[in-house]
Amino acid sequence: MRISELSKRSGVPVATLKFYIREGMLPRGEAVSATSADYGDEHLARVRLIAALADVRGLPLSRVREILALVDDPAPDPIETLGRAVGALPPYVEEAEDYPRARAAIEQAGLTYEPRFAAVPQLESAIRAIEDAGLRWEPAVLRRYADAMREVASEEVAPVGEMAVKDAVTYAVLGTALYEPVMLALRRLAHHHLLVSGAVPPPEVEPG
Amino acid sequence: MRISELSKRSGVPVATLKFYIREGMLPRGEAVSATSADYGDEHLARVRLIAALADVRGLPLSRVREILALVDDPAPDPIETLGRAVGALPPYVEEAEDYPRARAAIEQAGLTYEPRFAAVPQLESAIRAIEDAGLRWEPAVLRRYADAMREVASEEVAPVGEMAVKDAVTYAVLGTALYEPVMLALRRLAHHHLLVSGAVPPPEVEPG
Repeated sequence: MRISELSKRSGVPVATLKFYIREGMLPRGEAVSATSADYGDEHLARVRLIAALADVRGLPLSRVREILALVDDPAPDPIETLGRAVGALPPYVEEAEDYPRARAAIEQAGLTYEPRFAAVPQLESAIRAIEDAGLRWEPAVLRRYADAMREVASEEVAPVGEMAVKDAVTYAVLGTALYEPVMLALRRLAHHHLLVSGAVPPPEVEPG
Repeated sequence: MRISELSKRSGVPVATLKFYIREGMLPRGEAVSATSADYGDEHLARVRLIAALADVRGLPLSRVREILALVDDPAPDPIETLGRAVGALPPYVEEAEDYPRARAAIEQAGLTYEPRFAAVPQLESAIRAIEDAGLRWEPAVLRRYADAMREVASEEVAPVGEMAVKDAVTYAVLGTALYEPVMLALRRLAHHHLLVSGAVPPPEVEPG
C-alpha cells in the first residue's frame, strides 16, 4: 500500500507517519519509484503500536522508542524483555532500594517480589498514598484485589507461551496499555449499577 | 492542633495549607489569638482528601473544587452526587451524543447504560482504542473483565448504604482514585509471577 493508504488504515496523518520514519521508529517502505514507496501489514502493525502508546496512552516518545527497541532486539531472557517493555508504561514512580509495603503485600498475595520489576515501586507508591490519605490498608483489602487480578491475569498471559518474543512484547504492552482503561471503566460502571439497580442501598440523605 | 501540627500530620507544607485556605478549599481554623488558629480532625481529613486528589492523582484544582463542592453541598439525589464526584476523576475523554460500543458492552455485561455517567464515554474511548490498535474486542474478553470487576465492586460498594452522603462522596472518590493504581500494579505483578514461577511457559526465543 502507498503511504496515503497506510495513513487511512491507521488513522495517523501522513505528516506524522513521515515524522516516525525520519525518527527511525517506522521502517521506510520499499521504494517503487523516485517518489513513492510501498508499505505492508508489518508497517501497519507498527504504526498501530506507536499510535496506541503515544496518542492513546500519552507516552513520551523516549518511552515508545524503548518499547520498539525491545520488539526489534529483545534481551536474551524473554521474561526480562517483557518486564522492561511493560515497565516503560506509566505510571512513572520514584525508585528506591527497597519497597517494604509492596514486599509485604506481594508476599501475602503469594506473588514474586522482584524490585527491578516496575510494578513493585508502583504498588509501593499506591499503598503509601492509601496510608497517607488515612484509609485502611489491610489483608482483606489486598486479598480482594489480588484474587481478582490473578484470575484475570492467568487468562491474559496464557497465549504468551505460544508466541515469538517480539510478538509477546507487543501483546504484553498493548494488552496492558489498552485493557487497563477498560477494566477501570467497568469497575466504576459496576459501582454505579449496584446503586442504581437497588442491589445496594444508596447513602442516607441527611435531614435539612 | 496548630497549623504546623496539621502540616506534620498531613505531610502537606504550611505554605500549601495557607494556599488552600486562601482559595476557600480548606476552612479556616478557629481563631485562638490574633496570629494563630486551631484545627481539628475534620481539617486533617479535608487536607488528606485534597492531597490525594491533587498531589497523588494529579487532578487540576478545578476538578478538586468540583469534588469538594459535592462533599459540602450534595445534590438532592445521592446516586447523582456520587456519579458527578467520581466523574471529576481522570481520565477525561470527549463527550458525545451516544456511545454505541460502550452501550453494547454494558448491555452484554448486564450493567446500566446511563450516558451522563462519565465511565460510559471512558469505556467507549477504551474500546475504540482497542479496535484502532487492531486487537480483538469480543464477548469473552468483555466477560473476563466485567465478571472480575463486578465481584470487586460489590464488596467495595456495600458500606455506602450505611453512610451519610458527604462521607459516601469522600469514600467513593478516594476509593476510586487510590485503589485503581493498586489493582493495576497487582495485575502486572500477577502476569510477571505467572511467567517467573513457570505456571505459564515464557515466549519462544527465536533461533539466531
